Amino acid sequence: MSDNSFGRLFRVTTWGESHGPAIGCVVDGAPPRLPITEAEIQHWLDRRRPGQSRFTTQRREPDQVRILSGTFEGLTTGTPISLMIENVDQRSKDYSEIAAKYRPGHADYTYQQKYGIRDYRGGGRSSARETASRVAAGAIARKVLGEEVSIRGSLVQVGPHRIDRERFDWDEVECNPFWCADAEEAARWVDYLDGIRKEGSSVGAVVEVVASGVPVGLGAPIYGKLDGDLAAAMMSINAVKGVEIGAGFGAAALRGEDNADEMRHGNDGVRFLANNAGGILGGISSGQDIVVRFAVKPTSSILTPRKTIDREGQDTEILTKGRHDPCVGIRAVPVGEAMMACVLADHLLRHRAQCGGL
Amino acid sequence: MSDNSFGRLFRVTTWGESHGPAIGCVVDGAPPRLPITEAEIQHWLDRRRPGQSRFTTQRREPDQVRILSGTFEGLTTGTPISLMIENVDQRSKDYSEIAAKYRPGHADYTYQQKYGIRDYRGGGRSSARETASRVAAGAIARKVLGEEVSIRGSLVQVGPHRIDRERFDWDEVECNPFWCADAEEAARWVDYLDGIRKEGSSVGAVVEVVASGVPVGLGAPIYGKLDGDLAAAMMSINAVKGVEIGAGFGAAALRGEDNADEMRHGNDGVRFLANNAGGILGGISSGQDIVVRFAVKPTSSILTPRKTIDREGQDTEILTKGRHDPCVGIRAVPVGEAMMACVLADHLLRHRAQCGGL
Amino acid sequence: MSDNSFGRLFRVTTWGESHGPAIGCVVDGAPPRLPITEAEIQHWLDRRRPGQSRFTTQRREPDQVRILSGTFEGLTTGTPISLMIENVDQRSKDYSEIAAKYRPGHADYTYQQKYGIRDYRGGGRSSARETASRVAAGAIARKVLGEEVSIRGSLVQVGPHRIDRERFDWDEVECNPFWCADAEEAARWVDYLDGIRKEGSSVGAVVEVVASGVPVGLGAPIYGKLDGDLAAAMMSINAVKGVEIGAGFGAAALRGEDNADEMRHGNDGVRFLANNAGGILGGISSGQDIVVRFAVKPTSSILTPRKTIDREGQDTEILTKGRHDPCVGIRAVPVGEAMMACVLADHLLRHRAQCGGL
Amino acid sequence: MSDNSFGRLFRVTTWGESHGPAIGCVVDGAPPRLPITEAEIQHWLDRRRPGQSRFTTQRREPDQVRILSGTFEGLTTGTPISLMIENVDQRSKDYSEIAAKYRPGHADYTYQQKYGIRDYRGGGRSSARETASRVAAGAIARKVLGEEVSIRGSLVQVGPHRIDRERFDWDEVECNPFWCADAEEAARWVDYLDGIRKEGSSVGAVVEVVASGVPVGLGAPIYGKLDGDLAAAMMSINAVKGVEIGAGFGAAALRGEDNADEMRHGNDGVRFLANNAGGILGGISSGQDIVVRFAVKPTSSILTPRKTIDREGQDTEILTKGRHDPCVGIRAVPVGEAMMACVLADHLLRHRAQCGGL
Repeated sequence: MSDNSFGRLFRVTTWGESHGPAIGCVVDGAPPRLPITEAEIQHWLDRRRPGQSRFTTQRREPDQVRILSGTFEGLTTGTPISLMIENVDQRSKDYSEIAAKYRPGHADYTYQQKYGIRDYRGGGRSSARETASRVAAGAIARKVLGEEVSIRGSLVQVGPHRIDRERFDWDEVECNPFWCADAEEAARWVDYLDGIRKEGSSVGAVVEVVASGVPVGLGAPIYGKLDGDLAAAMMSINAVKGVEIGAGFGAAALRGEDNADEMRHGNDGVRFLANNAGGILGGISSGQDIVVRFAVKPTSSILTPRKTIDREGQDTEILTKGRHDPCVGIRAVPVGEAMMACVLADHLLRHRAQCGGL
Repeated sequence: MSDNSFGRLFRVTTWGESHGPAIGCVVDGAPPRLPITEAEIQHWLDRRRPGQSRFTTQRREPDQVRILSGTFEGLTTGTPISLMIENVDQRSKDYSEIAAKYRPGHADYTYQQKYGIRDYRGGGRSSARETASRVAAGAIARKVLGEEVSIRGSLVQVGPHRIDRERFDWDEVECNPFWCADAEEAARWVDYLDGIRKEGSSVGAVVEVVASGVPVGLGAPIYGKLDGDLAAAMMSINAVKGVEIGAGFGAAALRGEDNADEMRHGNDGVRFLANNAGGILGGISSGQDIVVRFAVKPTSSILTPRKTIDREGQDTEILTKGRHDPCVGIRAVPVGEAMMACVLADHLLRHRAQCGGL
Repeated sequence: MSDNSFGRLFRVTTWGESHGPAIGCVVDGAPPRLPITEAEIQHWLDRRRPGQSRFTTQRREPDQVRILSGTFEGLTTGTPISLMIENVDQRSKDYSEIAAKYRPGHADYTYQQKYGIRDYRGGGRSSARETASRVAAGAIARKVLGEEVSIRGSLVQVGPHRIDRERFDWDEVECNPFWCADAEEAARWVDYLDGIRKEGSSVGAVVEVVASGVPVGLGAPIYGKLDGDLAAAMMSINAVKGVEIGAGFGAAALRGEDNADEMRHGNDGVRFLANNAGGILGGISSGQDIVVRFAVKPTSSILTPRKTIDREGQDTEILTKGRHDPCVGIRAVPVGEAMMACVLADHLLRHRAQCGGL
Repeated sequence: MSDNSFGRLFRVTTWGESHGPAIGCVVDGAPPRLPITEAEIQHWLDRRRPGQSRFTTQRREPDQVRILSGTFEGLTTGTPISLMIENVDQRSKDYSEIAAKYRPGHADYTYQQKYGIRDYRGGGRSSARETASRVAAGAIARKVLGEEVSIRGSLVQVGPHRIDRERFDWDEVECNPFWCADAEEAARWVDYLDGIRKEGSSVGAVVEVVASGVPVGLGAPIYGKLDGDLAAAMMSINAVKGVEIGAGFGAAALRGEDNADEMRHGNDGVRFLANNAGGILGGISSGQDIVVRFAVKPTSSILTPRKTIDREGQDTEILTKGRHDPCVGIRAVPVGEAMMACVLADHLLRHRAQCGGL
């Protein structure tokens, strides 16, 4: 079924395994006559590319994207856009151990139980490698949204260490290897993550993605809620275990007086005095910044031996050698941005269909 | 489009406004020959019914469900099941104020901006009244899942007050007006919420829903992830602002050694030594308890005047009189259970389609 | 799953059995602020209503429609529109025979084999009664399309007797009990069908539906073709066994020179010199009349005994007593019009989503 | 949106233009552990490949398929199967004329009007080249259906010349360049089509596809009807203008006594005495052969000048030079078989989901 597709009108279908010949996606539903080049898509892929700092996996992938269909003379034609990224660095390492044993916290066990077969090389379909396709699709989604909408992400927590909101500055995001909007905190993370890395351990993280300039009216009541789709989109990213909008879980501790964002007359009709709602009211964008945070668990691929079972169900131990990602949350930042872009592009088209305009 | 439907194979479409003649839903895809009666559905509706304690809205609704199609001689036939609940208590009150002013934190403003029209009576489509249809659909979903699967919910936080995990006891859930599994904490909440209620204020909450006996293998990689669908389902409930699975946001602060649930040989092949994953690995159920929590914001309908604007965009103030829900999180418990049931039923059918069995 | 829904953006879900308490549908995706009343929907339902002449079943149904949701002060709100029609004339006849025996040519055998259960009363879900919901939904679809688009149907063949194209006149359609655009032929059908009726026999028919004023650009390449969706829509009507567009099967005998519709400069940019394409090129509307024909088989409910088997698989015979429809094709005319309206409304919204405008 | 996908559970998404770097498809939902190799898919692609006789286009394409994902060690894994076929023979001819003028009967005009842009090289997305992806997907669908189900197609009419049912013999299909089951008629077509070809003309055709060994129970009532999906699938093939099931349009002229297929006790419970229903009752397979016919119009690419307009809307003429397909219906035979396989595979999985078994 369409388990590998997301979006209804801006529809992305991804395919590919970590160690197959290639990965890619098909983007169906993009409006015609949008200018798009491989170079523009490459720009976003390069931000996500692994091996750019010692804090992410050392797998070396050029992640070179090719447009195989859907454009003509540099413009989208309204037909499906097929994007392909060849896998280059599939180390011919020995997979016999992960073929025989289930890595705790990984999809090994459940894939095997569900399908009775799995491509264990590098995690196969469950590898974070799939997220490259999302970033490529996100580049097209940004074109659909246009210049007015800006989507930015920041790592706001690594392990127990959170950033200071007072120091939040989007300009800092490109200045450190963590996409962190707090330069001071980012500086501290260098030593902290070096320690984690040297111990062969890993830590979790929290990513925040903010969309500015989103018009009021995107989303729909009940099961077409913008926040519902954002929650599904972020939760579909590898290792994500929680998603919140605006005040999120913090809202549970608030009283109605403090949580409801008051309104005043403003330029475009309204000015909100706060944004606990994270830019979404009743599932529909309010025109404020859309604020989403998601929690990324620490990768289970560590150098400390862990108790597990083998395919025969016998007790054994495993430790994951080879390339190592001390904090997978880092590379989740551009992916979260891409998912935000895709969800908003989808809802922009959905809004047009029913209500016109925009 | 299908903004009012959820689920792919166990497909629920809801309709109806707070103050229209009725609300209801159509359940499409239920297997044939399942025994189901109006009385069984009513059992679940009665748990959610408002006006059962002073801690929930005083709207008096019998919430009497009628099966209009899809069953024959007490069994499902495989054709769509149409369920209808008539609206009885639509107070003929004066709606001129909420017709003219936008209630902060409510969908009033965004509905009006998106559609250029809204049924403001009692919130119209954005009213929590819609969740009665979900609970009715959930009753059918439980039939699809069968006796082996049990789904239970508990209120685990009210305002800043959390339950003590040491005292967690499912048997307590039916013994207090909060569906709280911690009797001691629940006792404290009585006074606390009485205070909130008397002040005409409101407070947020956190609900936990647990599914036990779920077979391994439900869910699919990438965009068909069980946790992705659960996140969307819970986020689609009125006033929900956050969703987490297992350790959730807590996982961000953990290290790989502590977060990965180790495995040992067990009866059905495997025994997990922990459940930080909340019963889902790589988007697929592991056979452990599936644990979902969601945060419910405090309702914005309070007796304290709040700054807002009117339909002409002019500054004004509003306070919401009439029936009052000091903690909407309470009634969200049976709704969260129903959503869990529907998502699991959907994935059970989806698993059958691709992998057979179960 | 969504086996009882059609359309993607103008989405109709129908429910109900011939002898249940009611039938109905939910229309999801209609744009907001369309004026629609029960009376307007009733107008179209009355055209289809059985028992209006001796040439259709004598079941007496008022087919009174109720709008249960989705409108406010006479306008659509953008939320799902729930329509319900109560079943009044469910004769308390004896169903023991059709419960025990399979009627040849009916769905009795396949329903029983697939589901292991069936509501045999009046055919249950497979009854043409379901088409009342389609006609109701079609009334809303016409509102979406607006005044410029006119959709008309005519019975163009009854048994072996075809109309004469020379005499085709839309004004005649309302002047005879067959919705036939050829008055002379319709007059002949009176005696012919009286004969069929008195013999307790039945006969097939061909219905033509034409949509005028459809803008160029509706439909999409490949699997989103307008003709593909029209084919599915018409084939989903009870007893339909064939669908064709424009020249249809006749095109098989033509040569390229004769089939390709030549073009000349015209008012709106182009004037076509013929319409063998039936208004659709490459799956997309060309601005010409959209012409669809579909074949309706004779109903298998006849007074002549037929060989069949009973539920135990033993040989037996059956003849269908009671109400009788000598030519079900007659009542298929308004249904075909409604399906055309729904498909066009769906594609209008789909076009807006991707290409804007219209 | 998903305009380039078909099927719900066996879901095929195709992409690619006639003169882009490649075409391909993604097959999502195939069950795991099905043995499938590139060679097996190639077998079916070779049957469709152009340039095999002088009666089909002389474009020389190896149509070499590559499996890019979804299999491991020769077995499907349950993840999406990405198939790619590179375009080799894109003649660097001069496209200035078809870029400037609309070919009558082609999608040129409507594509341009809808999207405001089109890849005119070789018809771009509207080229029959896309059907290679369908044939590749069909090879996987056949694996899902298993050995018991056989799907065969025959050309049963070319221009005005129909085969003689008395001489129908499936073994003849592979023995002539027309996939024709009537050897005698096929022999006559050689001279006939040579004449058409030499005149630079073209002619229409009718294709019949039959599926044997299909279990009873595939399909669903109303909008999930097997014949409804078959109609959409066949109508989505380039140049198809009509689809019929079993007796099809012929049923319109029949009486109920003659059309209803009587039943008798048989081996698997039932034996039908005729098959006017074409193996489908109430939208559900009856266990009889499923019989579908579709009409293919003559291609509009002919050497006779035709009246048309240019992009500026001015009157002009055009004739289509270069490669020539005197009867596109020939190559539609393997495509029709593939579509039948895909629809049946989809419904097999859908049946499993709701009713289990099979």
